[in-house]
Amino acid sequence: MAAALTLSELACLVGGDIVRAGPCDLITGVAALDSATTADVSFFGNDKYWNQFLATAAGVVIVGRNESGGPEATGLVAADNPSLAFAAVVGHFAATRAAITPGIHPGAWVDAAASINPARSQVHAGAVVMAGARIGDDSEIGPNCVIGEYAVIGNGCRIMANATIRERCVLGNRVFIQPGAVIGSDGYGYELVDGRHQKIDQVGIVEIGDDAEIGANTTIDRARFGKTIIGEGSKIDNLVQIAHNVVIGKHSLIVSQTGISGSARLGDYVIAGGQVGIAGHVNIGDRATMAARTGVTTDLAGDTVYAGKPAQPLRDDLKLQAMVRRLPKLIERVKALEAARDAGQAT
Amino acid sequence: MAAALTLSELACLVGGDIVRAGPCDLITGVAALDSATTADVSFFGNDKYWNQFLATAAGVVIVGRNESGGPEATGLVAADNPSLAFAAVVGHFAATRAAITPGIHPGAWVDAAASINPARSQVHAGAVVMAGARIGDDSEIGPNCVIGEYAVIGNGCRIMANATIRERCVLGNRVFIQPGAVIGSDGYGYELVDGRHQKIDQVGIVEIGDDAEIGANTTIDRARFGKTIIGEGSKIDNLVQIAHNVVIGKHSLIVSQTGISGSARLGDYVIAGGQVGIAGHVNIGDRATMAARTGVTTDLAGDTVYAGKPAQPLRDDLKLQAMVRRLPKLIERVKALEAARDAGQAT
Amino acid sequence: MAAALTLSELACLVGGDIVRAGPCDLITGVAALDSATTADVSFFGNDKYWNQFLATAAGVVIVGRNESGGPEATGLVAADNPSLAFAAVVGHFAATRAAITPGIHPGAWVDAAASINPARSQVHAGAVVMAGARIGDDSEIGPNCVIGEYAVIGNGCRIMANATIRERCVLGNRVFIQPGAVIGSDGYGYELVDGRHQKIDQVGIVEIGDDAEIGANTTIDRARFGKTIIGEGSKIDNLVQIAHNVVIGKHSLIVSQTGISGSARLGDYVIAGGQVGIAGHVNIGDRATMAARTGVTTDLAGDTVYAGKPAQPLRDDLKLQAMVRRLPKLIERVKALEAARDAGQAT
Repeated sequence: MAAALTLSELACLVGGDIVRAGPCDLITGVAALDSATTADVSFFGNDKYWNQFLATAAGVVIVGRNESGGPEATGLVAADNPSLAFAAVVGHFAATRAAITPGIHPGAWVDAAASINPARSQVHAGAVVMAGARIGDDSEIGPNCVIGEYAVIGNGCRIMANATIRERCVLGNRVFIQPGAVIGSDGYGYELVDGRHQKIDQVGIVEIGDDAEIGANTTIDRARFGKTIIGEGSKIDNLVQIAHNVVIGKHSLIVSQTGISGSARLGDYVIAGGQVGIAGHVNIGDRATMAARTGVTTDLAGDTVYAGKPAQPLRDDLKLQAMVRRLPKLIERVKALEAARDAGQAT
Repeated sequence: MAAALTLSELACLVGGDIVRAGPCDLITGVAALDSATTADVSFFGNDKYWNQFLATAAGVVIVGRNESGGPEATGLVAADNPSLAFAAVVGHFAATRAAITPGIHPGAWVDAAASINPARSQVHAGAVVMAGARIGDDSEIGPNCVIGEYAVIGNGCRIMANATIRERCVLGNRVFIQPGAVIGSDGYGYELVDGRHQKIDQVGIVEIGDDAEIGANTTIDRARFGKTIIGEGSKIDNLVQIAHNVVIGKHSLIVSQTGISGSARLGDYVIAGGQVGIAGHVNIGDRATMAARTGVTTDLAGDTVYAGKPAQPLRDDLKLQAMVRRLPKLIERVKALEAARDAGQAT
Repeated sequence: MAAALTLSELACLVGGDIVRAGPCDLITGVAALDSATTADVSFFGNDKYWNQFLATAAGVVIVGRNESGGPEATGLVAADNPSLAFAAVVGHFAATRAAITPGIHPGAWVDAAASINPARSQVHAGAVVMAGARIGDDSEIGPNCVIGEYAVIGNGCRIMANATIRERCVLGNRVFIQPGAVIGSDGYGYELVDGRHQKIDQVGIVEIGDDAEIGANTTIDRARFGKTIIGEGSKIDNLVQIAHNVVIGKHSLIVSQTGISGSARLGDYVIAGGQVGIAGHVNIGDRATMAARTGVTTDLAGDTVYAGKPAQPLRDDLKLQAMVRRLPKLIERVKALEAARDAGQAT
């Protein structure tokens, strides 16, 4: 753990201002509002946690620029973005991205025809690096990973435990692959010939841009031919399925359990909420956002928030859902109309 | 396989009563109604299988207390809960939870700075146990598992093949982790800074209580800070996503492909059916049950069954769905009203 | 890469006819319409790509029998099924299913009590083959795979990196298991006894027929007793959940992220689109097709296309969805009727 911080050092670290001092001169750790002690710093960035804020025992809380309330005994530091400021403190204390310890573990199997500088990168026990694979500098190949033949891993990458990078796939620099992810599985392609599904060879690759992150147990299929592409800076959550020949632009966010069918193209800064489904061959414009569970079957223009199945602008979907919920009343109104009609006919 | 059972031994084992004897003195195995032979015991616990019951060739069938019918040549043993009684017989014959064979396989890599008693626990080939990890007694670390630095595994745990327990995560006693599960992956947290998603360090852990079970290829993210918690006795199915800082209480059931977003809190004895989606930061009360595919976006009170998206009490959702299905008729009724109105206006 | 092809050789290989010659005598590779060069062959099989076809720089394009247009400088070969024809060319060039190199890697752990002919099959580094397992000829056990005790792998199988085949499961011939898949995980079965979920032993197996394919990180649970069955020639996509005692017939297709609950039975040539959910104990007839996200809670007859939740014939679901979208207009019509009634009453 890194050195303790005084209140001034803390404010300086996060680019914030001291609103008031707290009970402790030194902050030695980070914690959530409801589990912090007087030696911890916490943060309050979401009104939902107002009661936790009032009840916290934290020594210091990082708050937004307009906040000066909260428990009187607690120190406050105001910052533009309390969540981001807190992240800086977390980084200070935890140093989670510990520097790697270069070298190849005796329990790793690195093929003689693979390329890696053992003075610059680290291969953990049980990892298998196959012939022709190339590993850049400052990269870490986790325990029991498999790096396939002629795969290329850039500089500063972290491939975590039990992940699989299949043959010829290409990762840029600072790519982070979480445990169990599979990069370059065969795409799902068959032709029905005489009553049997004949496999269509999937000879393309997956190409992942710089600074992208791939979640745990996520699967990304290689292209039938050509490339399945994850653009620079895009972040893919856990258990996402990305089919063959999909292209995802730069800085897009794909949340957990979303499925993207073959050859769909997503632009830059696209956001797909959890459990979204996207049909094959559709185009989704830059900065389009899909709410959780949106079902996309046609092209979507960018710069718009969508929801529902089939996807429509969020506003329209909300209206439609409200109308559906009013169906019981609508049925009552139709009944009343029928009664009036029948009464009218009876006279 | 364990010793054969006489009919009396069988009845005794399951706490049941012999309704009538069958064709065989000795039962040597277990099987489903439709694949059993005269040397097998089967069970009938669901009316759906009545026809299979009538046609079974099983020597003995375990039935409910009120059942005395079925095929005349088949022995019957009546028990309070045929399914549970059958489970006892399965346990007798199969001894699936075979005692472990303590020792560290020569193909395992256990760091010198890890703590494990090789006379009390077993580490299989290819498993990697990293520095600082502690493994309790009577535990089994499966082939090609990875146990990260300073992770803690309690007593009597089974960590199956290719599972990953990342650094510092803590498992209680008798925890069962199925193959490919990932415990302690980084939470999905970023801040957009100058057009790039800057990673927020995820420095917390996952804590799993006694007797919990985690399904195959399920992913549980570590907390941003603090703990993601799976309570004692809770059972998580396959391919479930549990995001950072989620808290699940005791004895809850989370069925396959459900996704739970960050910081959601579920109480005790909660049940989430398959493919449920739960938004971040919501609270779900004790004994709440969510039907398959329920979409939860707000807090839910306990002791209630929910369904639909957005979630509402099952009863209301069923009514609403029925009304939606009656829309064609409603449209006809409105047409008829319009015709009557138009006829009225014409006169 | 295989030898280059002349235009005649290409036409011969795919059983097609030369419509016109292109700029190159020799074709040396395959590529998509939008990334091909004059030395590549591409294909045009979907009108959606008409603009890409017009703009392609490919030397030759394989087209359908009626096509003779497209860019004038580009060679054309007409075939009955351009996609399938292209697959043949891909196979020629890529030879992705490279012949295995028999032998057991020194970094693999094959138990002395396992059965495999090292002159006929290949075991990669880090793979663990446990006691009693039997591996057929011409099979490949990928790096860091785990083959459990008494598991049976047929001839010509490919088990890819980090996959797990648990004890006693049986695979036929030419079965293809993608990376990270888990075959034979414990089914999800508990009985609530005195407030705790007591595990029901899952002592059955998984049996997979000849020529079946299982996708990356897909999970297939072993039967409680008896067998979970994947029929011959069926193809399962990535991240699919198949619960205990499910039976899937022959030549069925189960697309990504679909979940099939316990004891459901699917016939032959069934198709489940992506993210479908199927409840337990239902029967689905031969050649039934379920559109993406269909929710199945009751038996479904075969030879029908279904959609929606609950599932109904696609045609009915489309009608119902159209009616839901017309709700705003319906509400307007009811308002107009009410206004007419009120006006009538006022007079």
